[in-house]
Amino acid sequence: MINNNYCVIMAGGIGSRFWPFSRNERPKQFLDFFGTGRSLLQMTVDRFRPLVPIENILIVTNIAYRDLILEQIPDLQPSQILAEPCRRNTAPCIAYAVSRIQSITDNANIIVAASDHLITNEQEFVRVITEGINYVSQHDALLTLGMKPTRPETGYGYIQFETPANPADNNILAVKTFTEKPNRELAEVFVRSGEFLWNSGMFLWNLQAIMKALHQYLPLVMEQFDQGAGIIGTPDEDSFIQQHFPLCPNISIDYGVMEKADNVMVMAADFGWSDLGTWGSLYDLSDKDPQGNVSIHSKTLFYEAEGNIVTLESGKLAVIEGLQDYIVAENEGVLLICRKQNEQQIRQMVNDVQVNFDGKYN
Amino acid sequence: MINNNYCVIMAGGIGSRFWPFSRNERPKQFLDFFGTGRSLLQMTVDRFRPLVPIENILIVTNIAYRDLILEQIPDLQPSQILAEPCRRNTAPCIAYAVSRIQSITDNANIIVAASDHLITNEQEFVRVITEGINYVSQHDALLTLGMKPTRPETGYGYIQFETPANPADNNILAVKTFTEKPNRELAEVFVRSGEFLWNSGMFLWNLQAIMKALHQYLPLVMEQFDQGAGIIGTPDEDSFIQQHFPLCPNISIDYGVMEKADNVMVMAADFGWSDLGTWGSLYDLSDKDPQGNVSIHSKTLFYEAEGNIVTLESGKLAVIEGLQDYIVAENEGVLLICRKQNEQQIRQMVNDVQVNFDGKYN
Repeated sequence: MINNNYCVIMAGGIGSRFWPFSRNERPKQFLDFFGTGRSLLQMTVDRFRPLVPIENILIVTNIAYRDLILEQIPDLQPSQILAEPCRRNTAPCIAYAVSRIQSITDNANIIVAASDHLITNEQEFVRVITEGINYVSQHDALLTLGMKPTRPETGYGYIQFETPANPADNNILAVKTFTEKPNRELAEVFVRSGEFLWNSGMFLWNLQAIMKALHQYLPLVMEQFDQGAGIIGTPDEDSFIQQHFPLCPNISIDYGVMEKADNVMVMAADFGWSDLGTWGSLYDLSDKDPQGNVSIHSKTLFYEAEGNIVTLESGKLAVIEGLQDYIVAENEGVLLICRKQNEQQIRQMVNDVQVNFDGKYN
Repeated sequence: MINNNYCVIMAGGIGSRFWPFSRNERPKQFLDFFGTGRSLLQMTVDRFRPLVPIENILIVTNIAYRDLILEQIPDLQPSQILAEPCRRNTAPCIAYAVSRIQSITDNANIIVAASDHLITNEQEFVRVITEGINYVSQHDALLTLGMKPTRPETGYGYIQFETPANPADNNILAVKTFTEKPNRELAEVFVRSGEFLWNSGMFLWNLQAIMKALHQYLPLVMEQFDQGAGIIGTPDEDSFIQQHFPLCPNISIDYGVMEKADNVMVMAADFGWSDLGTWGSLYDLSDKDPQGNVSIHSKTLFYEAEGNIVTLESGKLAVIEGLQDYIVAENEGVLLICRKQNEQQIRQMVNDVQVNFDGKYN
C-alpha cells in the first residue's frame, strides 16, 4: 500500500430529507439504510480500506458527531476526525482537510468523497480509484468522478466532457461544462447526447494541485487556513479551528474551484453509484416484493398495497392496507406517512415540526 | 340507595377490531379511548355508581384480566370479579353472575351491561335505568334497552316493538321481533318505520325472572350452575367454575333467552349510546379538525389529509401527507394503516399476524 494516499470523507450533513429516519442526533450517514448492520459511513470507510491505510483516512464532520463516529469506526484515532464548529459547505471543509494533510506531508494523493453515498460494485470502485490516483499522482489536474448516467435523473448535476480525439485513448477527459440539476426534458437531451456524466461529488488530486487551486480561486478561505501553519496538526488545532473556521465564506468546492479552474478533468466511471438523496432513490435501489413494496428493517404485511417504502424501528411490525406509492417511516417517536411523489415537501414538514414542537422531534 | 340493585358488567371481550390499539393483554375495555384518563371499563363502573352500591357490582371476565381490573377499579374486592376459565358467549356469563347473586340474596334487581360501550348523556342514563329498575322490581319481565336509532346503522341488531294502544302510556313496550344486523336498504326501512330500536345488549330483570327463564330456555347451562348451589359464593367457587364452566354450551343470551321468552319487553332510550364496535364508530364520535381528521392521544400534523383517524402511543408525533379516510394506529410495536371502509378486514389481518408471527404482535 502506498502510504501517501489520503482519503477525506465529508460527514457533516444533516440529511433532513430522510426525516424522521434521520434525525439531528443521527443523520443519514450514521444510519444502517439497508439493514446490513453497517451504516453508510461505515460502508464508505470499508470501501476505502483497500486503497488507503486506515491512519490516512480523515473524516470532516460537525463537532457534535465526533463521538458517534469514533463509536462506529473504532479503529480511527480521535485526531482523524476533523471537527467543524459550524457549517460552511464543502470548500472550507476540503481546505481544512487539505491543510491537515499538508501538516503531515508535502506529497499526497487525496481522494475526497461523501460519507452517505451508495456504491454497489466495490471491486470496480477500487479499480477506478486506483487508476485515478495513478493519474493525479503524475498530473497537475483536478480530477472529478463522473458517473455514466443510466436514466435522465433530474436530481443530479451533470458534467459535459470534451470529446477525445481518439476515444480509446483513456477515460480521463477534459471538462467542458458543469451544469446544475436539469429539468426532465434537458436531462433526456443530456443522456441521449452521450457527452454528459452525473456529477458524483467525488474528487481526486494531489496535494500541490489542490493547494494551488484553493489559493488561486478561494483566497478568502485559504487566508484563514494559512494562518494555521505550525498550529494545524498540533494540540492547538481545535481551538485554532474554532476561531478561524467560522470566518470562512460559505461556498461549495464545485462553485468555488471546479467550475473555475482550467485543469479540471473528469474520469467516466460506472460502479453503481447513488447519492441516496431521497426516499425515492432509496426505493429505487432496494429489493422489492412482487407488488413493488420495499420494507427496510421492519416486518410488514401488505394488503392491496403497491410501490410503498416502509421503515419502522427494528423489530416492529407494519400492517398496510390500501396504500399506493407512499413513504411510511417511523423512528424515535415520529411517524411520517407521505406520498413518494411529494417527498420534496418533507423538508418543509421538518421545519413545521421544528416550529410547532420546539425541536423536540428534529 | 336500594341495596338489592346489582350490576353485572361483562368484560371478557378481546376487541380484535381495534387491533393494534387493543391487544390480547389489554383489550378494548381497558383502554382510554378518548384520552380522558379513564378506560371504557372505568367509565362503565363510574356510570353505575349512582345506581348500585359498589359492593353490588360484579365484573365477569376472562381469568387473565382479573389483576388488570383490580388495578383499574381499586375499590372492588377480588370476589367481585367473576373469572371465566374460557369463552362461552354471554348466556353462561350471565348465568354465572346470576347464580352468584342468588348465593347472596333471593331478591335482586339486576342490570347487565357491556364494559366497552360509550354513553354520552350519563344523567339521562341514570334516569332511564332507574325507571327500568322500578319496572322490573314489580314485573316478571325481561327488559332490554332499545336505543332510538339516529341513522340506518348496519352494524347493530334491531328490535321491533309492538305499537302500544296508547303511545303516551309509557315507553316500556312488548317486543315483536329481534333482527340481526340488516343490510343498508333494510336498515333504512327500519329507521323510517319508527318501529325499530337498536339492540344495545343492556338488560334489566329481577333475579326470579331471569332464573326462571334461564332454567326454561337454557337447561344445559343451568344444569352446570345448579350443581354449584352451596359452593358458588364460597372459597370453593373458583375451582367449581374451572370445572363446570367449560361444560356450558357456547350461546348468547339474545339467541338463548331473549328471542325465545314471551315476557320480553323493550324500553326505548336515548342517552347517546355507541357500542364502539369499530374504528368508524369511534371516528364518528370523536372531535374532528376542520378537515375531518381525528387525532387520539397523539400530536399530528396533517397535509392534504382528510377524514382520517390517527392514534399513536402517547407523546408520539405523526406527520401525515396525502391520506383520505384512513385508520392509522400504532401501539406497542405494531403500526396499522388501513382504509376506514375496509376496517372489517382488520380481524383477518389479526389472524394473519397471529399465523405469521406466532402471536408476538397479538
